[in-house]
Amino acid sequence: MNIVSLLTDFGIQDGNVGVMKAVIWRIAPRAQISDLSHSVAPQNVRQAALLLARSAPYFPEESVHCVVVDPGVGTERRPIAARLGRQRYVAPDNGVLTLVFEEADSAGEEIEIVHLDRPQYWLPEISSVFHGRDIFAPVAGHLAAGVPLVALGSHIDDPVRLEWPRPQRTDQGWHTEILHIDHFGNVMTGLKRELLGGIEKLLVRLGGQEVSGLVEAFGRRPPGTLMALYGSTGYLIVAEVNGSAKDRLGVQIGDPVEVILK
Amino acid sequence: MNIVSLLTDFGIQDGNVGVMKAVIWRIAPRAQISDLSHSVAPQNVRQAALLLARSAPYFPEESVHCVVVDPGVGTERRPIAARLGRQRYVAPDNGVLTLVFEEADSAGEEIEIVHLDRPQYWLPEISSVFHGRDIFAPVAGHLAAGVPLVALGSHIDDPVRLEWPRPQRTDQGWHTEILHIDHFGNVMTGLKRELLGGIEKLLVRLGGQEVSGLVEAFGRRPPGTLMALYGSTGYLIVAEVNGSAKDRLGVQIGDPVEVILK
Amino acid sequence: MNIVSLLTDFGIQDGNVGVMKAVIWRIAPRAQISDLSHSVAPQNVRQAALLLARSAPYFPEESVHCVVVDPGVGTERRPIAARLGRQRYVAPDNGVLTLVFEEADSAGEEIEIVHLDRPQYWLPEISSVFHGRDIFAPVAGHLAAGVPLVALGSHIDDPVRLEWPRPQRTDQGWHTEILHIDHFGNVMTGLKRELLGGIEKLLVRLGGQEVSGLVEAFGRRPPGTLMALYGSTGYLIVAEVNGSAKDRLGVQIGDPVEVILK
Repeated sequence: MNIVSLLTDFGIQDGNVGVMKAVIWRIAPRAQISDLSHSVAPQNVRQAALLLARSAPYFPEESVHCVVVDPGVGTERRPIAARLGRQRYVAPDNGVLTLVFEEADSAGEEIEIVHLDRPQYWLPEISSVFHGRDIFAPVAGHLAAGVPLVALGSHIDDPVRLEWPRPQRTDQGWHTEILHIDHFGNVMTGLKRELLGGIEKLLVRLGGQEVSGLVEAFGRRPPGTLMALYGSTGYLIVAEVNGSAKDRLGVQIGDPVEVILK
Repeated sequence: MNIVSLLTDFGIQDGNVGVMKAVIWRIAPRAQISDLSHSVAPQNVRQAALLLARSAPYFPEESVHCVVVDPGVGTERRPIAARLGRQRYVAPDNGVLTLVFEEADSAGEEIEIVHLDRPQYWLPEISSVFHGRDIFAPVAGHLAAGVPLVALGSHIDDPVRLEWPRPQRTDQGWHTEILHIDHFGNVMTGLKRELLGGIEKLLVRLGGQEVSGLVEAFGRRPPGTLMALYGSTGYLIVAEVNGSAKDRLGVQIGDPVEVILK
Repeated sequence: MNIVSLLTDFGIQDGNVGVMKAVIWRIAPRAQISDLSHSVAPQNVRQAALLLARSAPYFPEESVHCVVVDPGVGTERRPIAARLGRQRYVAPDNGVLTLVFEEADSAGEEIEIVHLDRPQYWLPEISSVFHGRDIFAPVAGHLAAGVPLVALGSHIDDPVRLEWPRPQRTDQGWHTEILHIDHFGNVMTGLKRELLGGIEKLLVRLGGQEVSGLVEAFGRRPPGTLMALYGSTGYLIVAEVNGSAKDRLGVQIGDPVEVILK
């Protein structure tokens, strides 16, 4: 089984994603390619890092995740590939792997990283503006086709890691922020279920409003109700039943969130 | 051949569709997965039902259609799977299969439905908010990999079926409504070719305007002309040559349509 | 290896692309299908022609490119298939292959074109509005499955070719126009690197502004800087570092561009 995921900020209108798939299949003709998203906001490395960390755990072992959100393309920033436990990654060294590195650290997984410095695994001609096509896609193809990570470049152990906002303990509970807002307008906070343990009596303040109590699922309250619950990846989210909490609350990514424990 | 189609209201920005594919391939590594649409309006079960019924007939026998438009996720609504003739379906039991049930009834096809109540065919952990990933995708994978329908759950014969608006005979012809408006702005009515037989002299009233006569194809009249014709799935549609009938007429899904036979 | 690319103006909301894939896999069950774009502006044959010519060279030999931007569907316009060198194409004969014909001419590649006039390679029923599903997808499937081009129709040598705007030499340099604006707002002109040779001292005038000098890559200047550089397919582009040159300059496709050589 060789599965490749693609995560970019390319959009789907210009043919660039289709070309990357062609390059991958040229090298790994049987690879199954899954589009994680091509709607990352342009150059938004943090958004891609978060989406990757939420999605990768559901992929089979030995999947190859090819991430191209790359504001530094054509500069000195390194292209890298990594094995973290049984998942593999190909990306620019700009911090987009920060969260998967942290997950691997927490899980005590083996981490192996190489600087992609061997052009024999790239396309013959390298543009200075589209390394997704010229470097990252062919390297992902070679990994999917069975080339070992160590063949693709020189070992490094100093990848770029971004500082990440952490939930902070307050007198009354936790201070965090909005990390993501999904297609439905569900608002994801930075608080994971583990941090809150079994606490169910809580109040969430965001966008000047308060949402109290935790429910189990979307369908448990009448349409239009604002509610707090745990999302599919374990983060505390605020949602409106059959509606958009984003629109209702007028919030955006980065806005502060207070969680009051009672 | 094992083909899986995906039809959801998830959008394509958040990685959820990509994760569902990974889950399917983990179980059925060679499945070919076709995205029918992920742009169903949030929680719009009727829109998904219509899109599914229009598309499924073009899929090969034994395809598996995985439909996740699921406002009741996490509540008591049942997850189900069905075999209708030679096509297979996995979906929440909320009426999204209404039209394919009706098609199967009309065609006298065998119908077999099971309540998905055997967790050994799901992911090990079930969230209360993303059964697409945790239940429907793995079940679709098992079907594609050859597990028989009866193994996946207990037989039922009372699936939810929604009431559907039917064209009504009037003194002058038919009363119907707008069922769908496509990417080009073509407006699809609820009248199928069979109902109108060979009648070609007709007048369509919608959005306060009248469109007269039936043409065979888009390219038969000058750009900008409003015309009535049969769409690719046999429904009477109103289109503007190289333009958007939707914008021209200012109409939306659900608006009334009168067809006058002459 | 059998790769099929799809390039249409269908959007991705209505299920039409998913249905085309089902039809292709029915005939060529192992085909790998790459979506080039389904966001071509409705009926915009030129935009599709350009996108196809930029993308096809990166596909492996024997790929099949299925292009359905087809304002004349259902009229007398011919459906055609072509082999140009080692790439294959299926499309309406409306000029959408103009640029790949020209590339093949320039490269001295063998060109072989057939009029698709053999219904045994189509779906059994042909609608007058969706030849993508009924003719082009099945023909692409047969090509991918190994049916030779000559079996699919009668030889022709008079395909429609569109007039294409060419850069014009001026006293000071070149006059061209904006051919494409991508997802990032990067503005692509009609001037290829070959025409400008090694010249690096130049001034680009567009949208009432001037951009001077050529840089190598996006990341070489501070965010917000407007700059000229060569894009990934060798055309001169104007971009804003981490921003949108389109929004900054207020330009659109077709706007004039002056390049002054110094």
